[in-house]
Amino acid sequence: MTVTLNPQSTEVTEEQQIRDLIATWIRASIAGDLPTVLKLMSEDVVFLIAGHPPMMGREAFAAASRAAAGKFEIEAHSDVKEIQVFGDVAYCWTHLSMKVTPHSTGMPTRRSGHTLSVLRKMSEGNWVLIRDANMLTVEH
Amino acid sequence: MTVTLNPQSTEVTEEQQIRDLIATWIRASIAGDLPTVLKLMSEDVVFLIAGHPPMMGREAFAAASRAAAGKFEIEAHSDVKEIQVFGDVAYCWTHLSMKVTPHSTGMPTRRSGHTLSVLRKMSEGNWVLIRDANMLTVEH
Repeated sequence: MTVTLNPQSTEVTEEQQIRDLIATWIRASIAGDLPTVLKLMSEDVVFLIAGHPPMMGREAFAAASRAAAGKFEIEAHSDVKEIQVFGDVAYCWTHLSMKVTPHSTGMPTRRSGHTLSVLRKMSEGNWVLIRDANMLTVEH
Repeated sequence: MTVTLNPQSTEVTEEQQIRDLIATWIRASIAGDLPTVLKLMSEDVVFLIAGHPPMMGREAFAAASRAAAGKFEIEAHSDVKEIQVFGDVAYCWTHLSMKVTPHSTGMPTRRSGHTLSVLRKMSEGNWVLIRDANMLTVEH
């Protein structure tokens, strides 16, 4: 029996874990499953959003999400452009499209654009988002 | 004689090199010194800018810079919010303010906002920008 060692296999696995994180994030956000989304970010996560002050920390994200809960229908699609893993640090570039429809008005807003995220691998082996740059703009 | 070893010293030096890179970038951009700016990025650099398609590669950056050369007066100020170094990879979060005045009109446009950049340390020991997220918006 011959065993073929693939020196890329660990990296591929790490990349797939990050792809899974993004897919889970999108799915849980659409479903309004905040506890699942919160597990995908570090406690000291920072979200940088064009035209807004930084959102600092998991608790700030949770508070904003709770304030919006049940008020919007969300559709989102993430297209991963690149993932690079360097040991227990990685970055990920995606193109994200969102359609957010307030239940109160039924008038959807579409946003799209790029994101650049930095992720870290925790000692438990899971990856979490630590810094996120959101360059989405409103589509007219 | 007692020699005190500082386990932070290498990291501090790397962080200072990245601070120097940012300062050089700003200074050279204002001075229109394109060759100096080009040395601070990798050949396959990607610039992600809110509301614009990605600018891919050093040559695309150079072409855009040459097209704009001599047409604008630029003022810029960068406030480094955070630098984290992980071996030969780092990220840097800044708040950037720019005032761009076309010589043709003399009417300045002010932009400000956050940037999130990923940098790599080259085998020669210098740091270069490899991915850059620009979340600047026009100030009204």
